[in-house]
Amino acid sequence: MQEFDLIHRYFDWAPAHPEVALAVGDDAAILAPPPGQHVVIATDMLIAGRHFPESTAPEAIAHKALAVNLSDLAAMGAIPLGFTLSLGLPEIDESWLQRFSAGLRAAADRWGCDLVGGDTVRASRLTLSITAFGSVAVGKAIRRGGAQAGDRLAVTGTIGDAALGLMLALETGKAPANLLEADGSYLRERLDCPEPRLSVGRALSGVARAGLDVSDGLLQDLGHMLSASGLSAEIDLDAIPLSPAARRWLEADPTAIDHVLGGGDDYELLLVLPPELPLDPEWGLTLIGRLDDAGAVGEIRERAGRPLPGQRGYDHFTEDGA
Amino acid sequence: MQEFDLIHRYFDWAPAHPEVALAVGDDAAILAPPPGQHVVIATDMLIAGRHFPESTAPEAIAHKALAVNLSDLAAMGAIPLGFTLSLGLPEIDESWLQRFSAGLRAAADRWGCDLVGGDTVRASRLTLSITAFGSVAVGKAIRRGGAQAGDRLAVTGTIGDAALGLMLALETGKAPANLLEADGSYLRERLDCPEPRLSVGRALSGVARAGLDVSDGLLQDLGHMLSASGLSAEIDLDAIPLSPAARRWLEADPTAIDHVLGGGDDYELLLVLPPELPLDPEWGLTLIGRLDDAGAVGEIRERAGRPLPGQRGYDHFTEDGA
Repeated sequence: MQEFDLIHRYFDWAPAHPEVALAVGDDAAILAPPPGQHVVIATDMLIAGRHFPESTAPEAIAHKALAVNLSDLAAMGAIPLGFTLSLGLPEIDESWLQRFSAGLRAAADRWGCDLVGGDTVRASRLTLSITAFGSVAVGKAIRRGGAQAGDRLAVTGTIGDAALGLMLALETGKAPANLLEADGSYLRERLDCPEPRLSVGRALSGVARAGLDVSDGLLQDLGHMLSASGLSAEIDLDAIPLSPAARRWLEADPTAIDHVLGGGDDYELLLVLPPELPLDPEWGLTLIGRLDDAGAVGEIRERAGRPLPGQRGYDHFTEDGA
Repeated sequence: MQEFDLIHRYFDWAPAHPEVALAVGDDAAILAPPPGQHVVIATDMLIAGRHFPESTAPEAIAHKALAVNLSDLAAMGAIPLGFTLSLGLPEIDESWLQRFSAGLRAAADRWGCDLVGGDTVRASRLTLSITAFGSVAVGKAIRRGGAQAGDRLAVTGTIGDAALGLMLALETGKAPANLLEADGSYLRERLDCPEPRLSVGRALSGVARAGLDVSDGLLQDLGHMLSASGLSAEIDLDAIPLSPAARRWLEADPTAIDHVLGGGDDYELLLVLPPELPLDPEWGLTLIGRLDDAGAVGEIRERAGRPLPGQRGYDHFTEDGA
C-alpha cells in the first residue's frame, strides 16, 4: 500500500472543530485560533518496548499516545483543538492499522480534538510522535514557575498506579499475594489508558498558581516545579492519594512506595493553589503539602520526617535519563 | 546525562520571535499568532538509513530535518514561526549532540524560526520528528486543489539533483565518467542540505492558484495536485530545469531521467499560476507545462509525445510506499 492510500484509508476523517480550517491531505494543516486565545503546543514521542510494552493492544497505544500529549495541554489549562501524528511502522499490518485508527479516532472524539496531519514512515520499531495543539485565554496558562511560599500542593486522581502496572507488565516486580485479580487489571489499565485531566486543567486555568503533569514521578516533577519557582516543599506521605489496588500492594510490600512516588507515567496534574482558594469537590483534588522557602531550592521534606525515595538513593531517574 | 540536562544544554535557547510567548522548559509551548493570520502546521519524521544516509554529518541532518518541514510551510505560502523537535537517540554522544545542536540553531536562525519544545527518547536508530508552525494571512494559503484548465505550471530551482545525489551516496548508481568531482559534491549537497523556498512561497501566497513541494518526485507530486484539482497536464520534458551536474549525468546516461523525475527529495516548489500572471524574475521560476482538461484526471502527457518514466513501468513509488 502506498503512503497516500494508507493515510486516506486510516487517517483522514472530517475535522469536528471549526478552528481546524484545513486537515489531512495537503502539505500542511491550517488552524484558525479563536480570538483572544493563544495556541498551546505539546509534543511527545513513544517507542514500542520503551514507552509501552510491545504486547499493548493497538487501541491502547493510540489512546496512550494521544493522552500523554493532551495531559501536557491539560497541565497548561488549555483546551485541545487538534494534533499531528507521525507514525513509524515496522510493517503494513492492515488489521493492526484498522484497530489503531479506530482507537485513535475514539480517543480524539473522547477528548474533542481532530487529527490534522502527519507522516508515515517505515521504522524498525513502532514509533509514534504526536504534537498536540490547544488554546488557552491570553495570560491564563498554568506554568511551572510562579508558585509562592504558603501555596498548597494538590494532585488529581491517584498516584503510582501506572508504575505498579508497569511492574506487572514487565514482570520486574512480583505482585504481592494479597493483590486481587481486579487490582492487576486496574493497574494495567492505568498504565495503558491514562486519562488526561482536561476538565480540572481548564477549570484551574488562570486560578492555579503553577502546575504540571506527573509523567516522570511525583517527586521528580515536584522538584522541577520547585526549581522553576525557587521554593522548597513539605509533603505529607500519608496524604498522597492511592487507589485501593496500590494500597493493598503497599500493605504487603511497603518498599513499593519507591515506585509509587518515583515511577512516573501517572498523567495526573500536580497543582499549586493559593492558600485562600476554596476547593471545588468537582475538581477531584487531594491536598498533599505546602510550598515554603524553609529549605534549599527544590528540596522536598516529609512532614513527619520520614525519608523520601530520592533520599534512599533510589536511582530510577538516572536509569532511563535520556 | 538526564533528559532535563540534555535539553537545557543543547536545546534551550531564547526565542527570537515575539509570537513565541513560551518556548522550551514547560509542559508545552505557547504561540501568539499575529492578528489576521492563520497557523500553518506541517510535520515530517526522518529516520537514519532511510531518509538520509547513516554517514550524514550531524549539522546536515539538523539542516535537512528542519528544511523538509519548512518546505511544506513554503508550499503553503506561510512564514515560519517555530518548531518542535522529538529526537530518538541510540546513545548520548555529546560531540554529536553539540554539532547537531549547532547545526539546528544555524538552520533555525537562517530561516527565522524558533525551537519551542520537544522530547528526547532512546531509540534503536536516530529518529527525528519535527512539527513546524508558520503563519499565513487568512484565505491566502496555497493549497493543492483549485487549479484551473489553462493555468501554467512552474517549478523553482532545478529538479533531480537530490535523487542523483542519493545514487552517489548509496552507491546504487554508477556516476558516469564525464561527471566532474565538483558535480558529485554539488549533488550530495543538494541531497543533504535542501533549501526551503520560503521567499517565493511567501511572494506567491494569495497569487498562485495551487502548489506543493516536490518531495516524492516531480511526476508523482504533480499527479497529486492534478487529482486534487480534477485536471490533467501537458509538460515539456526539455523545459524541466536541470543543474549543470544533472545535465552532464543525463548526457552520459539518458535513462537517469527516471530518477530525475521520479526520485524525489527535491524540496522545490511546484506551482500553478494563472495564465495572465507576469513572472517576476526574482521568483526564480521555470515554466514547465500547462494544465488542461483534455485527459483523464491526474493524467500527465509529454508535449512531444515522449514516454514519461511512470509509463515505462518504473516503480520507485511503490518500492518505498509506506
